[in-house]
Amino acid sequence: MQLNLLPHNEAALRIEKVRSAMAAQNLEAVLIADNANLYYLTGRVFAGYIYIPAIGETRCFVRRPVKTEGENVIPIRKPEQISESIGSVAPSTIGLETDTLPYSLVLRLSAVFTGVEIGNASAVMRQARAVKTTEEIKKIETSGIKQTHVYSLIPSLFHEGMTDIELQIEIEKASRLEGCLGQFRIAGNSMELYMANLLSGDNADNPTPYDFAMGGEGLDPSLPVGCNGSIIRHGETVMADINGNFTGYMTDMTRTFRVGQISPLAEKAHRCSIEICRRLESEGKSGVKASDLYSIAENMAREAGLHEYFMGHCQKAGFIGHGVGIEINELPVIAPRSRDILAENNVIALEPKFVIPKTGAVGIENTYVVTADGLRKLTFAPENLENLI
Amino acid sequence: MQLNLLPHNEAALRIEKVRSAMAAQNLEAVLIADNANLYYLTGRVFAGYIYIPAIGETRCFVRRPVKTEGENVIPIRKPEQISESIGSVAPSTIGLETDTLPYSLVLRLSAVFTGVEIGNASAVMRQARAVKTTEEIKKIETSGIKQTHVYSLIPSLFHEGMTDIELQIEIEKASRLEGCLGQFRIAGNSMELYMANLLSGDNADNPTPYDFAMGGEGLDPSLPVGCNGSIIRHGETVMADINGNFTGYMTDMTRTFRVGQISPLAEKAHRCSIEICRRLESEGKSGVKASDLYSIAENMAREAGLHEYFMGHCQKAGFIGHGVGIEINELPVIAPRSRDILAENNVIALEPKFVIPKTGAVGIENTYVVTADGLRKLTFAPENLENLI
Repeated sequence: MQLNLLPHNEAALRIEKVRSAMAAQNLEAVLIADNANLYYLTGRVFAGYIYIPAIGETRCFVRRPVKTEGENVIPIRKPEQISESIGSVAPSTIGLETDTLPYSLVLRLSAVFTGVEIGNASAVMRQARAVKTTEEIKKIETSGIKQTHVYSLIPSLFHEGMTDIELQIEIEKASRLEGCLGQFRIAGNSMELYMANLLSGDNADNPTPYDFAMGGEGLDPSLPVGCNGSIIRHGETVMADINGNFTGYMTDMTRTFRVGQISPLAEKAHRCSIEICRRLESEGKSGVKASDLYSIAENMAREAGLHEYFMGHCQKAGFIGHGVGIEINELPVIAPRSRDILAENNVIALEPKFVIPKTGAVGIENTYVVTADGLRKLTFAPENLENLI
Repeated sequence: MQLNLLPHNEAALRIEKVRSAMAAQNLEAVLIADNANLYYLTGRVFAGYIYIPAIGETRCFVRRPVKTEGENVIPIRKPEQISESIGSVAPSTIGLETDTLPYSLVLRLSAVFTGVEIGNASAVMRQARAVKTTEEIKKIETSGIKQTHVYSLIPSLFHEGMTDIELQIEIEKASRLEGCLGQFRIAGNSMELYMANLLSGDNADNPTPYDFAMGGEGLDPSLPVGCNGSIIRHGETVMADINGNFTGYMTDMTRTFRVGQISPLAEKAHRCSIEICRRLESEGKSGVKASDLYSIAENMAREAGLHEYFMGHCQKAGFIGHGVGIEINELPVIAPRSRDILAENNVIALEPKFVIPKTGAVGIENTYVVTADGLRKLTFAPENLENLI
């Protein structure tokens, strides 16, 4: 089996981006072990490590699968064997993925390089991955098209008397049949979500422990987010935020549906969400501060008299958007204290949402590519409130 | 919202088990942050920390959800606020979950306790959780009953000409409608699986990077395990190893189906798997070495002339069983070099499987409670090869 599935130029381009980020942190090398980063660098997940020196050749140390082949591929059984290969050219500073790898693994890996200073390769990789390549954007565009098709099916999957989870299960199946890979990659191990966050009625106001934009009680306290088994009732909204991973890269899209007539306040808040998106689409140019986008959105919600409901009601999220790609929580972060500055070919999801008591969650979310002229949309389902009945 | 959902006695019992494991490691306190362990200690997942001193009262520091209440519940915004509460009674050694928490989080948490020696709370919690309480076993039993029902539906979900993933999607839906929570908890962040591993025909012989017992190419190199979109053909087997998390605690069960006639070798290997299970059910008493169970299984496979196919063909797994509970990879580990000794109320899954080239994977997996007299089975689907056609 060939290890590297990326076209040669593409692989070289990604390594270059990593090296630029390494230089900014004065790292002489990085050793990569996290699945999302291994996938970024080779186009496949494997069990092993990639060693990238600032100068010299990249080496891939592969534990599994067996019989993996390719340029500079070295089979190993344990990470200690890496030092035999690096040997006399060991660097004086090396970056490890200290924000995602377990403490004990970082200690074990750092012991491979005796006397070496440890830096943060998580920051390096986040930086490198924040600006997408043309190949990556193609994969994200494909996910957007497939996800849009799945969303177009949602009204046909609903029937009166259904519970939230019954509707979610129908959407899960439609999405899987469309090719959704299911896995929902999130950096770090504290956030968990199975396939979708579908919120109907007042369940949207149940706070969650997770740092998602929206909450929900969940079906069980072992996974307290999303559907709680409520029957979807007239006068309520259903907000669907469904896994968009069809290619290894995901889009993030939310649409809201209404069952019969809903309150004028909820209608107004939904229109406000769309208006915020339109405004941010023109303001969101490369060079703009992420925190400025947040302020624009928050001010629009405040001026509309909707601040109380903005990004949650009982519990509020601290951001209105985030980078998206291999994982759902990439750079830049669109939050009040974010220091990120939008760059061309960032891919971001914007989700200015509202929770209206007794009605439910309203608003939309789209995924965009940042350009010099504003945001280019990748998620195309109709944005107005659609009727389920 | 009340933080602790466990009955008072149950919560106290679990804390006692943790304290016993702490004493064995000479830890004066542990600070717990991992979702699986927080769920173990309170019956719910929350964002925060539980501080357990060897002597004195447990304290719960809660970041999210907002408005969480209960005995010794202290709301915080960041972990640094923990030190205000611990203050002058700070321990000299504290255990953190160094095997699962990211390196940077462990450093941040250890800075909360100045001058304190850091120990391994992952080991403490693994040890405490390995022996299940009566309440936990009830939850696992419930999962086993529901999972058994889902397996009984599998033949009715198949139709000729189906691909492996089409069948898996039907099983996913049936399982979710039965109440499967979907989330498949695995300790550590290197193993990934979406809902099920369903292997038909020769795809079973495709090696995976993950440390699961079986492989499969996967639908995409970003998630290289399980179904690869092959049409399920006559003369092949379909091995179904489907998520059994219905209660926050899971059972792990595998059953194999055949499409028409399959090779006598595959039939023989399947019978051998059942025979190994029967033998281990009587040998697997408390006090027995896990490595001895492995040897018995391996010897039975060898004596049957099936060693070449045992636990994989192109690539082999290094174990035949594992503890199961909140996570799929708990103690004890049933492997050649395991030092674990079976204890009463361990819950283990045994999966002596074979991969037969050109036919596919065969064998079964059951989840058991360890007793003084042997293993008590919790997964009840029929074990013989069932016909899909």
